[in-house]
Amino acid sequence: MAYLLADDGYEVSLISFDYGQRHRKEIDFAAICAQRLSADHRIVDLRVLTSLMNTSSLTSELIDVPDGHYAEDSMKQTVVPNRNAIMINIATALAVTKGSKFIATGVHGGDHFIYPDCRPEFILSQSQTLKLANSGFIDQKFEILAPFVNKSKADIVALGESIGVPWLETWSCYKGGDIHCGSCGTCFERREAFEIASVTDPTNYATRPVFTDPR
Amino acid sequence: MAYLLADDGYEVSLISFDYGQRHRKEIDFAAICAQRLSADHRIVDLRVLTSLMNTSSLTSELIDVPDGHYAEDSMKQTVVPNRNAIMINIATALAVTKGSKFIATGVHGGDHFIYPDCRPEFILSQSQTLKLANSGFIDQKFEILAPFVNKSKADIVALGESIGVPWLETWSCYKGGDIHCGSCGTCFERREAFEIASVTDPTNYATRPVFTDPR
Repeated sequence: MAYLLADDGYEVSLISFDYGQRHRKEIDFAAICAQRLSADHRIVDLRVLTSLMNTSSLTSELIDVPDGHYAEDSMKQTVVPNRNAIMINIATALAVTKGSKFIATGVHGGDHFIYPDCRPEFILSQSQTLKLANSGFIDQKFEILAPFVNKSKADIVALGESIGVPWLETWSCYKGGDIHCGSCGTCFERREAFEIASVTDPTNYATRPVFTDPR
Repeated sequence: MAYLLADDGYEVSLISFDYGQRHRKEIDFAAICAQRLSADHRIVDLRVLTSLMNTSSLTSELIDVPDGHYAEDSMKQTVVPNRNAIMINIATALAVTKGSKFIATGVHGGDHFIYPDCRPEFILSQSQTLKLANSGFIDQKFEILAPFVNKSKADIVALGESIGVPWLETWSCYKGGDIHCGSCGTCFERREAFEIASVTDPTNYATRPVFTDPR
């Protein structure tokens, strides 16, 4: 998303959140992206929230990350309550301070099934609420950009490829090992997205198991 | 508000936010309140946000807290961008984890003039957004309680007095000294509220200057 917005001419600043996710490694990759784009990059340490959300497998060492395709039952436990809304609200505080007109989130169409805070109706309602919350302090035309909200991961790969996104400098894996595991939900969908988009996937995966789509 | 909700029969949990406010002392007073009510009390350290909001006098040592009545110009600098929305969103994450049906905020009618995130239209819109963000994970009847949203501080003092709130165990002052300063915006309004409500104010103020209402 950052590459796309920069390509579209926006002056981009990046904000990453460390909420104790096992895939904290994504933050290092965000830093590489910021460097490529000569963009400001802030990292907000929200690990204090981990104790409030100790039922989620993305933050707890006690619960295994479920393997395979994102299906409702096994993936529900990867939901950190209200996570996107919290991040969007903090990003907006920064936007108000900086006088920015937009914030942007990379939520995508494939997330709608189980993540309510990735759906278009949430993004629209959240935009309205933020305008009310910051009325007089925020640009009247403020909005949340969500360029992928109705796109699949395959669409995103095709789009990224068309603007030359350096894929080896991007991270998806929820397990946060040395290389992509290839088998967690997000690795599986990454592999599937390149395949559907007919784009060569340069990612080095530890394994490439085949799963059957449960849907 | 906690005393009122407990008096109304709600099982209350308290959440405090340390965002580097000079009046961090309010958190100790919240702890005393929690003890009185035998309520759970969580303190969320959000000081990391201070660097994102370094233009606000509530968090910066470089800018003086303005004295006197809350008038638009001098008080605008006490606004931490999107502060209430961030707190409400984090409280909701906890509510989802605990399975709570409500969260509550003590925003009051006197705040509407300069703080957009204290207005009824914000609270309503925020409730709707939170229901969308957490659809399937949150009680369908979830709402944000804001019992003081259309009440003045004088109304709140009258209400508190009627249920026996121990005023000496409450803290208002923005300056966070040993005793209430008596001259900052919130001390001034506290003194005024007791006076208007005709309730004896047991608070020990350092000074009791008289200001003219600029409105």
